[in-house]
Amino acid sequence: MMTEKSSLGIVETKYFTFAHAPDELVLESGQKLGPITLAYETYGELNKDKSNAIWVCHALSGDAHAAGFHKDDKKPGWWDEMIGPGKAFDTNKYFIVCSNVIGGCRGSTGPSSINPKTKRPYGINFPVITIGDMVEAQRHLLDELGIERLLCVTGGSMGGMQTLQWVAAYPDRVKSAIPIATSLKHSPQQIAFDEVGRQAIMADPAWRGGNYYSHVQPERGLALARMIGHITYMSDQSMEEKFSRRLREGDYRFTFAPEFEVEGYLRHRGDSFVQRFDANSYLFITKAMDYLDLSGEKFIPQDKKISTSFLVLAFKSDWLYPSYQSRDIVSFLKSRDVDATYCEIKSTYGHDAFLLELDEETHLIHHFLARISQSVKNGNGR
Amino acid sequence: MMTEKSSLGIVETKYFTFAHAPDELVLESGQKLGPITLAYETYGELNKDKSNAIWVCHALSGDAHAAGFHKDDKKPGWWDEMIGPGKAFDTNKYFIVCSNVIGGCRGSTGPSSINPKTKRPYGINFPVITIGDMVEAQRHLLDELGIERLLCVTGGSMGGMQTLQWVAAYPDRVKSAIPIATSLKHSPQQIAFDEVGRQAIMADPAWRGGNYYSHVQPERGLALARMIGHITYMSDQSMEEKFSRRLREGDYRFTFAPEFEVEGYLRHRGDSFVQRFDANSYLFITKAMDYLDLSGEKFIPQDKKISTSFLVLAFKSDWLYPSYQSRDIVSFLKSRDVDATYCEIKSTYGHDAFLLELDEETHLIHHFLARISQSVKNGNGR
Repeated sequence: MMTEKSSLGIVETKYFTFAHAPDELVLESGQKLGPITLAYETYGELNKDKSNAIWVCHALSGDAHAAGFHKDDKKPGWWDEMIGPGKAFDTNKYFIVCSNVIGGCRGSTGPSSINPKTKRPYGINFPVITIGDMVEAQRHLLDELGIERLLCVTGGSMGGMQTLQWVAAYPDRVKSAIPIATSLKHSPQQIAFDEVGRQAIMADPAWRGGNYYSHVQPERGLALARMIGHITYMSDQSMEEKFSRRLREGDYRFTFAPEFEVEGYLRHRGDSFVQRFDANSYLFITKAMDYLDLSGEKFIPQDKKISTSFLVLAFKSDWLYPSYQSRDIVSFLKSRDVDATYCEIKSTYGHDAFLLELDEETHLIHHFLARISQSVKNGNGR
Repeated sequence: MMTEKSSLGIVETKYFTFAHAPDELVLESGQKLGPITLAYETYGELNKDKSNAIWVCHALSGDAHAAGFHKDDKKPGWWDEMIGPGKAFDTNKYFIVCSNVIGGCRGSTGPSSINPKTKRPYGINFPVITIGDMVEAQRHLLDELGIERLLCVTGGSMGGMQTLQWVAAYPDRVKSAIPIATSLKHSPQQIAFDEVGRQAIMADPAWRGGNYYSHVQPERGLALARMIGHITYMSDQSMEEKFSRRLREGDYRFTFAPEFEVEGYLRHRGDSFVQRFDANSYLFITKAMDYLDLSGEKFIPQDKKISTSFLVLAFKSDWLYPSYQSRDIVSFLKSRDVDATYCEIKSTYGHDAFLLELDEETHLIHHFLARISQSVKNGNGR
């Protein structure tokens, strides 16, 4: 039985700074980065034996604000329907952590942060980071919180990639994992969409080689990248249901103004995105996604036995992260005798489904976490 | 039995100019356009009773040069494998016509043409045209050639849209039609991809509101539009087969240069496209495609009985013009008792398949045309 759902109410973003010189974080590229600040939020209470912590990883344009409300903000966190009292990630039972990725622009160190060595924003001189680097930074925060082992790591899309990377890097510190609508590696089609978005940003003269911070950012390029993204987040069917060939109000016939509703929608989503996101972060984060390759041995070495339990979720109409990519994860896990449950959720929402198919996700996650928690209580946790 | 295939050898583009003031072409928008020049090519010989003419319509970036070789050019026309002696459109039997669409930039009147009223290129002041306008211009050329009735109209993608429009506008002048990988109307997803391409062009400062003809054209914007296009022309599987996650030669690791082969390919296709295509034409032609809506009555009015025979072809992996759109065409035709054969060709090439699955297309088209020709010879032609 699930309890009544309620809101977390007001929440606050916290900050953790580490990797001060000379002990900077050594990145996969060999470059060093530091000091690093991670913006993060926590919901619920860490229990006495610190066994109830769940790490939530956000997607490309997400941030640390996963649930609840910021003071004076009417919009809740990006996964508020899933995190809170009585919800899938039940804050009456679990302690939830979500942190903004490095390379981002929502409080964690990224290309728009001040480089202490130059006293100016890093810009394009920010080191190229990987999903591995993002998780490594999160691991420092995990240590700071004094948590040895996570009950669960989860996330959709790039959040799912981080989830997989958590297991690849620290299998013994992850009791269970719920990668959603994700992949062990980007296909060339996924790389291609990312690359066109990056090209759109870098083709905008306002990008100025990445050094635009004393000017306006490359808004049109970033908006274009976001428009391309939004097409890939929806499905043919969900677009048909939402827009069909309806026209916007006003007489735009035989002009090049946005005339169909779908055109107006994309323009709006593009324009609003540039108000809250940094173009260079878009470059660095998409590059990190393209780099991830956890196929085979890179995910779990042949000689490594892992005890992490998996719930792998995919969505039928998701063509950006098609369900075969999730099945590939499960096949590989099964081949390594890893406990893995797979569910392909029927949905017409496309990739966006991981943010929208809340009832189905809640149902599956609730039961999975109950099983995992019970196993920990029974002492099978380690 | 099919005869030995051979090449058409050297062919030449011809030009036909009509619609001189005051008898300009009245467009669907109500605006007038004239004089209009159509670039066109013909292959084979028109027979005595002018009953063997086949009209080939090109796609977005195609042109009148469908087959054979231009003098001093090693690259044949865009459908050379399909048109020539012994080929699907057998020039030993049929007289083939292909003309560049109005709005284009390959010899027919378009935004880069000189507006006789201003003595300067039309630019963005070129009237917004429709697929109907394109076909209406072609109908003038058909009259000029003295052909009353076409044995067949065919084309893939936008060529298929023109094919359908030919039947919608002049059912009595079209004995048969072979629309390939096309749709009666663009879905919101198709509109969305076109719109992002247009936005990419118009966001390029080099576009200059469409008045760039005394400068360099908006190359980066047009290249971006083409890159987006190319992703949609291929399939997830064909990209995997062609590129997988292979890297380009050279050390681009941890940079934002094209590093994966797929990135290099897209960049190359974008860059080469701007050498041969006009950015404003891209705007006008994609807009024309988005406008087409031949659903229901707009295709064939309730009280109209048409005798055109159809061969409708689609490709399994084509997600830009998914096969359900072709099945929709066939369902509608069947509901109106129109002779229609449908074939979904197995292919991994995606939308590009209409230019690549030549054996299968040849087989199907060869037999369809033989049947149609026989029916004409038997006097059932009209």
